[in-house]
Amino acid sequence: MKLLRVGPPGAERPALLDQGGTLRDLSALVDDIDGGLLADAAALDRIRAAAGAGVLPPLDATGLRVGPPVGRIGKVVCIGLNYHGHAAETGQAAPAEPVVFLKAADTVVGPDDTVLVPRGSVKTDWEVELAIVIGRTARYLETDEQALAHVAGYAVAHDVSEREFQIERGGTWDKGKNCETFNPLGPWLVTADEVPDPQALSLRLWVNGELKQDGHTSDQIFPVAEVVRYVSRFMTLYPGDVINTGTPAGVAMGQPEPKPYLRPGDVVELEVEGLGRQRQELKGA
Amino acid sequence: MKLLRVGPPGAERPALLDQGGTLRDLSALVDDIDGGLLADAAALDRIRAAAGAGVLPPLDATGLRVGPPVGRIGKVVCIGLNYHGHAAETGQAAPAEPVVFLKAADTVVGPDDTVLVPRGSVKTDWEVELAIVIGRTARYLETDEQALAHVAGYAVAHDVSEREFQIERGGTWDKGKNCETFNPLGPWLVTADEVPDPQALSLRLWVNGELKQDGHTSDQIFPVAEVVRYVSRFMTLYPGDVINTGTPAGVAMGQPEPKPYLRPGDVVELEVEGLGRQRQELKGA
Repeated sequence: MKLLRVGPPGAERPALLDQGGTLRDLSALVDDIDGGLLADAAALDRIRAAAGAGVLPPLDATGLRVGPPVGRIGKVVCIGLNYHGHAAETGQAAPAEPVVFLKAADTVVGPDDTVLVPRGSVKTDWEVELAIVIGRTARYLETDEQALAHVAGYAVAHDVSEREFQIERGGTWDKGKNCETFNPLGPWLVTADEVPDPQALSLRLWVNGELKQDGHTSDQIFPVAEVVRYVSRFMTLYPGDVINTGTPAGVAMGQPEPKPYLRPGDVVELEVEGLGRQRQELKGA
Repeated sequence: MKLLRVGPPGAERPALLDQGGTLRDLSALVDDIDGGLLADAAALDRIRAAAGAGVLPPLDATGLRVGPPVGRIGKVVCIGLNYHGHAAETGQAAPAEPVVFLKAADTVVGPDDTVLVPRGSVKTDWEVELAIVIGRTARYLETDEQALAHVAGYAVAHDVSEREFQIERGGTWDKGKNCETFNPLGPWLVTADEVPDPQALSLRLWVNGELKQDGHTSDQIFPVAEVVRYVSRFMTLYPGDVINTGTPAGVAMGQPEPKPYLRPGDVVELEVEGLGRQRQELKGA
């Protein structure tokens, strides 16, 4: 299923994009698409049955904002340097074990919402990523099979990053990863049953129409199952938590000087195969 | 005022510790102590008036668990190496600007709840800290006065840290900071009007009754106002967000070998002057 949330920020309603491409209202069935729903197999089955029976009311998509596909996200865990190509372009060796950092859930916005270039920023960069959405509480998982059984689904994430804040201001990366609006997510949460192999997805990102990233999840150093298993040793993952699994080659930081960092007025578009497409206009904060 | 939340995890009720030391029920006045309440000056005034008028019903504190003093926390921002003494004991220079990292809000537990030593951990360490609780949305603050006006109050925080995960496993510090139960908070949120100078507070921590940390917020490299102002340039702070302002000297990592890291069965007690006292027993995860 393709689950999404539509409407004004903070007042999104749950919806489903059916196989014919029609938007369907889920408000009568569930309050929201959030960790509570994702952990509730019976509720998901009710949605599936209603969709199959063709009884969900259509929604007029005209002019409707799409919000992040998951509400009440607890945390966003990010994996750094997780594509061979991206590690190489930043001049770093492939890490021996996953590099983990956090984004606050309040950085998450809808897939087509405005992204703000922080005040004083000269190195705002793009990163298309495959996001994992957690469906069951995960602690100390031992096998890849267990790990995949804790995944509710997948989504497109834009892990916007300010490289000066991230790398040149001392301390950890978090300073350049948590600026307001820095994590567009969606449009859809595609349930895991419709993504049979998360390591077989292409990812692309364009800036002002020019293709900048053209990667594939088969280039991931640590695949989805290993990422979930590994992270669950260091922190507990809860339903509705999101893991951004890293970006392929092609970010601004990896280009020759003068590096083409993002400025107000730029337009970024990105997609992951089968998971939909985002489009953000950048503005000043 | 000393605000707190009492009752079982996830079902805490709002309460107040009055000036006579009696616990008072706030359930009839407010739903919870959270960002929504802290941003609502009128609601806080109603609590203050009811407390002054002596009309709040007492609560029997016997056997009552104390939860974290703030519910629905959005994020926990942490400042690293923020005491001259702690920077020195870790062999590092005082940072030129604040070192910032994140803890997920799901690490927050009550002040006397069990702390879990992660599986495979051999370097679980303690850190008593002064926590700031944010009361108003803070973006790009310019002055210390503005910064302090965005602080709702203060609390004791225990920034439990696994040093091997933090430092020896690659990537950022976050891997050793986000284990389950790693951020006891409370017992109270003491409103800012009752903490006239946050740079004049002693902090102490004991392990199994032995004093390990004996610091003072006057040793902070970046004081509270500067921390709030600085962080607001890199991320938006929302009501109910927490900032752990760093730990003074005396952590296990700073001791001679064999360093006395925490093991199941150990008991940690900590306090910040005027903000109350915590006591945790450690168990295996």
